[in-house]
Amino acid sequence: MEIRNDLDGMRLALQWAEKGLYTTSPNPHIGCVIVRDGIVIGAGVTQPAGQDHAEIQALKDAERRGIDVRGATAYVTLEPCSHYGRTPPCCDALVRAGLGRVVAAMEDPNPLVAGKGLARLAQAGIEVSSGLLAAEAYELNIGFFSRMTRQLPWVRLKTAASLDGMTALHNGRSQWITGEQARADGHAWRARACAILTGIGTVKADDPQLNVRAVETPRQPRRIVVDSRLDIDPNARVLQGGGTWIVAAVRDHDKEARLRDTGAEILTLPNAQGKVDLPELMRELGRRQVNELHVEAGTKLNGSLVRERCVDELLVYLAPMLLGDAQGMFALPALTELAGRHALKFHQVGMLGDDLRILARFHH
Amino acid sequence: MEIRNDLDGMRLALQWAEKGLYTTSPNPHIGCVIVRDGIVIGAGVTQPAGQDHAEIQALKDAERRGIDVRGATAYVTLEPCSHYGRTPPCCDALVRAGLGRVVAAMEDPNPLVAGKGLARLAQAGIEVSSGLLAAEAYELNIGFFSRMTRQLPWVRLKTAASLDGMTALHNGRSQWITGEQARADGHAWRARACAILTGIGTVKADDPQLNVRAVETPRQPRRIVVDSRLDIDPNARVLQGGGTWIVAAVRDHDKEARLRDTGAEILTLPNAQGKVDLPELMRELGRRQVNELHVEAGTKLNGSLVRERCVDELLVYLAPMLLGDAQGMFALPALTELAGRHALKFHQVGMLGDDLRILARFHH
Repeated sequence: MEIRNDLDGMRLALQWAEKGLYTTSPNPHIGCVIVRDGIVIGAGVTQPAGQDHAEIQALKDAERRGIDVRGATAYVTLEPCSHYGRTPPCCDALVRAGLGRVVAAMEDPNPLVAGKGLARLAQAGIEVSSGLLAAEAYELNIGFFSRMTRQLPWVRLKTAASLDGMTALHNGRSQWITGEQARADGHAWRARACAILTGIGTVKADDPQLNVRAVETPRQPRRIVVDSRLDIDPNARVLQGGGTWIVAAVRDHDKEARLRDTGAEILTLPNAQGKVDLPELMRELGRRQVNELHVEAGTKLNGSLVRERCVDELLVYLAPMLLGDAQGMFALPALTELAGRHALKFHQVGMLGDDLRILARFHH
Repeated sequence: MEIRNDLDGMRLALQWAEKGLYTTSPNPHIGCVIVRDGIVIGAGVTQPAGQDHAEIQALKDAERRGIDVRGATAYVTLEPCSHYGRTPPCCDALVRAGLGRVVAAMEDPNPLVAGKGLARLAQAGIEVSSGLLAAEAYELNIGFFSRMTRQLPWVRLKTAASLDGMTALHNGRSQWITGEQARADGHAWRARACAILTGIGTVKADDPQLNVRAVETPRQPRRIVVDSRLDIDPNARVLQGGGTWIVAAVRDHDKEARLRDTGAEILTLPNAQGKVDLPELMRELGRRQVNELHVEAGTKLNGSLVRERCVDELLVYLAPMLLGDAQGMFALPALTELAGRHALKFHQVGMLGDDLRILARFHH
């Protein structure tokens, strides 16, 4: 592939970043390509936590090929780090390697480190710039940036409904409202999340596995069940394989012991009403390094999450049908004024097979 | 404008057809352009019923300019007519004028006349073809074609809802769920319809004028109110200016007389349940030469029209908000099987300001 200009270089760096979409968390997925005279001489993507960042991978790639990177340009989807974390700062490696120019898609959104990496490179005599395809770079790591800036995961709530907004019949029937492509797409969104959350109602009604099946992934997201009264059956499929987090509002030694035997962990987070404290749960998930949280729950938990302003984005699949009197998308109390509405902004709309996919974001 | 090829010619003919969108009904809106050596030498659009068809207008246009059309190519958005209606056949005029070639977007969808016009032209030695931009030509006159082939209007039901499918709060509040652009677009759809239909519930709740205001039009569509028991107030705004059709299921001499005084006409079309026979109303509107019927009604009449399979297309504006427990789009009975759903196909989707516009068609 010939890199004719900076845009080409950054587009390729974003493609490398995407390779890490299902694997690098809680690290961000960053891509880096090193280019000289329109030729890619090194490329890399962030490795799982504790291992190489993208820049180091790209430098090693060039080294493996026996190519000298001195004077070359590096395209990187996030400003290189300038601090010691689990790995040494990438800036130092780029300076040592003698890069001539570094183009970053965006500065680090963490105000404590923003700009420091680029400044360090500039001090070392490297030409730097940032802002190219910044929006695309931001979207790829929206969860990581949310955690860095708000100490909260980016919460994406997925729902599938008929055009008249119905998710299931009153008798619970909902399979299959949407088609094959929408279901596969839903699994791709699951795969990029650090964790998938549902409620005890959905576990009882559908006994879901809550894992990624329709797309290939080397890593399964953490499964989380909101279950105020510890009602979950220890044989529920969501507990199989262990590692599930059960979020309760009560303590019950025997039940907890039985659930721990499945490999589950119990988080007890009651609020004053004896329900699970959902905002506190989000803060806890932030502390536990959950970047993107994918919610697939029923009308009730969906409504509670929206009402308590825990949701950042809706991922809605609309199927081409009317269902009439049935179960709605969100159990939210009746309003008396339109001013009380939950305002959104349509972020992205498109067709997926016969269905419509809508990404909409809340104004918080 | 230079016409480099047939596609250019037909695109221009479609633009001429669109000029008649608000005015030619019950005639279709047909456009015709006559081209020689890449130069447009005549153009026209169907005039209101009883006056010139597009081809005659285009020939007259060339004549007015003093240009001889012999040997030229005519692009026309529908096969020229070969029969005597209120005007003489266009085919004869094209033959007399000595056109060399006629390109039609589509054949007449009325099986009784389909192909006859083109055959007549071919017999006279004119080169003919059809099928270029046929889908676009069909959409422009979908109501006319519906009436010609099914003796029914094309029924388009407009509704505006929140993303969770709610059209109004329980207290009736609904202004303004959607934004300025969506409302103006809704008026453009009203303007192209022959008639706008609503129900007595909406008249009582909102007292709408049910006319076209947000776009300019020389012609206001007919207004129709479904009002089974003749409950409408003679001072209702929908009756102002006269000409409104009130569709009832009962007779009441006094009420009818008072309503006729406003200039309204009463249609009495009861079904066995003592309600308005909606499928019979659609047949009656077909007989009355309604091409496109635009429905803006409440949850109840919307539901009845869908249930009785009177609706061909939904025009849905989705606003970026959640309303929760509120009034839905269609009052339809609860299903026990998904197989009972009303199946649609998404026809067109796009943004209008902050809102989403969806055109979806029923599988009948």
